[in-house]
Amino acid sequence: MTAMNRNPISSIGSPIQKYLETVHACYRDLDEGEVASYIPELFEADPHWFGICIATSDGQIYEVGESRRAFTIQSISKPFVYGMAMEDRGVEHVLAKIGLEPSGDAFNSISLHPETGCPLNPMINAGAITTTSLVGGATAGAEGVPRMRRILETFERYVAHEVAVDEEVYRSESATGHRNRAIGYMLRNFKIIEEDPMPSLDDYFRQCSISADCRDLAVMGATLANGGVNPLSGVRALDARHVENVLSVMTSCGMYDYAGEWIYRVGMPAKSGVAGGILAVLPGQLGIGVYSPPLDERGNSVRGIRVCRDLSRELRLHFLRAPRTSRSTIRSVYDATRVNSKRLRSREAAKALESHGDRIRIFELQGELSFASAEIVIRKAMEEIEKVDDVVVDLRRVLSVDAPSARLFAELRERFRDAGKELVFSVGPHADTLVVALEKREAERAANSTESPSPGVFRDLDVALEWCEERLLRAVLGDEGRGERLSISELDLCRGLDAAQLATLDEVLEGRTFAPGDYLVRRGDPADAIHLIARGTVSVGIQHENGERTRFATLSAGMTLGETAIVTRGRRTADVYADGEVECFVLPLAKFDELDERDPSLKIALMSNLLGHLSRIVGKLTNQVAELSK
Amino acid sequence: MTAMNRNPISSIGSPIQKYLETVHACYRDLDEGEVASYIPELFEADPHWFGICIATSDGQIYEVGESRRAFTIQSISKPFVYGMAMEDRGVEHVLAKIGLEPSGDAFNSISLHPETGCPLNPMINAGAITTTSLVGGATAGAEGVPRMRRILETFERYVAHEVAVDEEVYRSESATGHRNRAIGYMLRNFKIIEEDPMPSLDDYFRQCSISADCRDLAVMGATLANGGVNPLSGVRALDARHVENVLSVMTSCGMYDYAGEWIYRVGMPAKSGVAGGILAVLPGQLGIGVYSPPLDERGNSVRGIRVCRDLSRELRLHFLRAPRTSRSTIRSVYDATRVNSKRLRSREAAKALESHGDRIRIFELQGELSFASAEIVIRKAMEEIEKVDDVVVDLRRVLSVDAPSARLFAELRERFRDAGKELVFSVGPHADTLVVALEKREAERAANSTESPSPGVFRDLDVALEWCEERLLRAVLGDEGRGERLSISELDLCRGLDAAQLATLDEVLEGRTFAPGDYLVRRGDPADAIHLIARGTVSVGIQHENGERTRFATLSAGMTLGETAIVTRGRRTADVYADGEVECFVLPLAKFDELDERDPSLKIALMSNLLGHLSRIVGKLTNQVAELSK
Repeated sequence: MTAMNRNPISSIGSPIQKYLETVHACYRDLDEGEVASYIPELFEADPHWFGICIATSDGQIYEVGESRRAFTIQSISKPFVYGMAMEDRGVEHVLAKIGLEPSGDAFNSISLHPETGCPLNPMINAGAITTTSLVGGATAGAEGVPRMRRILETFERYVAHEVAVDEEVYRSESATGHRNRAIGYMLRNFKIIEEDPMPSLDDYFRQCSISADCRDLAVMGATLANGGVNPLSGVRALDARHVENVLSVMTSCGMYDYAGEWIYRVGMPAKSGVAGGILAVLPGQLGIGVYSPPLDERGNSVRGIRVCRDLSRELRLHFLRAPRTSRSTIRSVYDATRVNSKRLRSREAAKALESHGDRIRIFELQGELSFASAEIVIRKAMEEIEKVDDVVVDLRRVLSVDAPSARLFAELRERFRDAGKELVFSVGPHADTLVVALEKREAERAANSTESPSPGVFRDLDVALEWCEERLLRAVLGDEGRGERLSISELDLCRGLDAAQLATLDEVLEGRTFAPGDYLVRRGDPADAIHLIARGTVSVGIQHENGERTRFATLSAGMTLGETAIVTRGRRTADVYADGEVECFVLPLAKFDELDERDPSLKIALMSNLLGHLSRIVGKLTNQVAELSK
Repeated sequence: MTAMNRNPISSIGSPIQKYLETVHACYRDLDEGEVASYIPELFEADPHWFGICIATSDGQIYEVGESRRAFTIQSISKPFVYGMAMEDRGVEHVLAKIGLEPSGDAFNSISLHPETGCPLNPMINAGAITTTSLVGGATAGAEGVPRMRRILETFERYVAHEVAVDEEVYRSESATGHRNRAIGYMLRNFKIIEEDPMPSLDDYFRQCSISADCRDLAVMGATLANGGVNPLSGVRALDARHVENVLSVMTSCGMYDYAGEWIYRVGMPAKSGVAGGILAVLPGQLGIGVYSPPLDERGNSVRGIRVCRDLSRELRLHFLRAPRTSRSTIRSVYDATRVNSKRLRSREAAKALESHGDRIRIFELQGELSFASAEIVIRKAMEEIEKVDDVVVDLRRVLSVDAPSARLFAELRERFRDAGKELVFSVGPHADTLVVALEKREAERAANSTESPSPGVFRDLDVALEWCEERLLRAVLGDEGRGERLSISELDLCRGLDAAQLATLDEVLEGRTFAPGDYLVRRGDPADAIHLIARGTVSVGIQHENGERTRFATLSAGMTLGETAIVTRGRRTADVYADGEVECFVLPLAKFDELDERDPSLKIALMSNLLGHLSRIVGKLTNQVAELSK
């Protein structure tokens, strides 16, 4: 693993950086607690060393003081190795060996269950030694990847750079670790450890001697806060299934016999180490690392406890102060009376949408969809079920859909279809869980039905909306008149013209036919004509290099295309292509200009119709802007 | 307190209701555990009684089975009375009497600290009896509101209806409560209770005998999930400062010696009662109530534990699975090249905004602002500080701003001003904390400066945006030309006209002057003229009954007002009023129509200018829609 650019965005001058500096200044001169003295290497630490670091779950770092000074992580290794044991052995195997209840005792108490011999929890030494024994890998010179190598590689994923054992500390830990060896044999006696406990003890001493700095602790915390993925490297350090398990044991047992008060006064899953480190996690949000060697009588860093209490109180980081996220899940709700697809409609169809568009409801969602946020959307949709025909749930801005909310949305679609309505989804890149759930539900339905399967998934809100509009227009206007060829007098541009004017116009118009996919106009061509569509629909858009098209608008029979050319006389800014068979009349601008002399009254009448056309578009767009800015 | 409409929205047919029914069906026939038998009233309970209820933090209820059968809440009363003790005595006083550490012992263990005599935590009986003794109110016939009346009134706020003590259960509890009396005197011995313990014991027996149903438990949980405010009634039941304290003790000690495993397997602050109730809270999201009398050997409802485990796993409700809310805080970011205020600009100003509008950045926020969400906004703003002149932070859709994020935003504004830039806020109804923080910071600044105070708060995004645009335009274009009266040839509508055409037009135009506030046009008047503005600005809007105006647009010198009248010939749809001194030319439509005969070339030229004008508006609005739909 190579060193990374560890702080891409400077935090200098940020109010947050400034705040952290005041916290650091506040406790810099605090003179309380004692540096651990059971081995000389720890006792050598300067009691003034003091660093604080916050890492957010998306990888921003704020650090102050000696945040880059290395120390040994000691007991802070315990929850991370516990995560490995669960990955290697599964939850139930681990739980059969190690309990989950706080001991209420000090960190080095033996605390085995009197009957089973199980360590009460994985955060006391007895539990942590058992944990290490459960991690897979070769020990004592056996073949395969050594267990300790696997442990180090896991820590490297948590910190996004290479890590190493401090060999001097390891030798001292090993030389003085008699009490831990006694615990090891007690565990062997109760068959909690089923082989020679010495190799596990050796790896345990080594894992406690891993060297890290305050910033590493914060990044390890941020990795847990980010669901197990290191936000700096994007590499997964812990299976998502076990993140809550690790955080749970940190919550109930991470701070020894200070656990209850820590939850009350700080309220973050945390773990402390006897070298003076404290690591705390605010799930979903951030990791905190504090380093300062002097310890209180419980073995927790004095400055570490103070800093965490201040940060929690002053930044309101308590994990039970949950924001009501679900309340911002619905970004906006609107209907098709004011916001429509990019398909331009005939006056009649536009009027129908304006009158009946409230029967199509659009819910734009955002953020992460979980039960509570899905519940709000489902409730609102169920409230509408009597009032609407179709609902579009737009998930383009959604960051994740968890399995329970995906299943509930698939069920919701069924409720709508049972009521003879449609509920469809426009999905973005993060809705795969939902697409799978919808396809699964649809397969179940298809097995009991003759209908063709239709999971109701669109990749584009615009297309989903057009699909609903078409359903509505068929219901309101029927299918008549669609697909017929319009005569000149039926074209929008020709409204109110008298017979003589129509005859003049007929002389200057040129008829054209296009096959599906043909271009009427290419981007960059001179804008030298207006097209009047007599049959079929055309779309305005841009073709990208990969062949995909972005649609700006779709126009249908009767409509005028390219009227801005009259004013701008520049070049085409987009392609226009035939959606199917298309017939149209072309009015060259040169001929249009000649009307100034030849038939000014016709020219004025045409321009008046164009003004009316643009006025309606302005009205429609103004409504749409007002709706989208609500 | 009167009975409320307790379920305004039907949940029938909802996929969530359906899911709860399957969970209920799954455990209905479970035959494990024993009904509590220490008093006859509890032992009379039918082991088949079984109800489940979920109440969301905004008051939606889903319930199944016997969710309306009354039972006594027993130990579930403990955290709620603990909240009262903190309100009455303050946190430190309560903590000096009652510890916070899990006992690891059974619910009825005495568990006093061997030296101080403090109960280890408030969820064991010793702690709860002490808690009751700390609640204010009159006891034993003394004057004033009786303590028990106060306790009942608090529970009424939690459930939003009247509550009562089950007198039969109370008499049995009191008749058999010798162990609790022994605990009471032990507490008196250690001076934890400083007066006769008997009245406190009496109230303790009564609080445990309060009658409630499963739905009440869910609503009590939802009240805690909602920051202490009952979502059904909107009434506060617990001071917001103490909500986390109550949830903290439920987390560490709520499930007796099952606390560690409960955190691991369910992961919600919870409390169980010996009558078979379990109450669980997912902070910010929901409350759960389960009722089923058979208990396991730890005294927790067997079905209750199973249901909570299933709900947590299947709906992913574990409280350490936090959504990354902060990632949906920024609703959108854009600049003033594509989205502008409602002030219509001259071609020159519009061009300047199009070229330089990227120096104004708008951040639209939403949801609840806490440290983690504010951090993201602050980081993005700090990234922009070199690139932009001004930033508008739009908080109209924000639901709350906590004190830390308000302070950080006020600091952020200072950073911008130190750099010679502006960062202003458009605020909605929920940003008072921020306004106060900004005013406080501004007062500090004003004390050391000669600048006039300017907290940077706008009530309207549009006005904030216009303010930034004006700053930008002054910087780019200077102040020249502003405020001068334009001649006819300088008006937008008259571009490209020759001298003869201008002379003809001059004959039909009528000059007018308006004082500030004067109406140029009233809503409902016939639309019979076009106005050409020669000096000053006018605003288009609607005046509401309360005198307030909603602005649709502002037009300045050179612009044309009311051109759609040419096509529609209807009535005015809005008021137009002079912002200051205004001069304009009026072109009556009757005169405009006469041009068809009198000077068709002039008419065509004017219409061509109007077409160009509308085309530009269509282009601008299309961009704006695209930007807002991103």
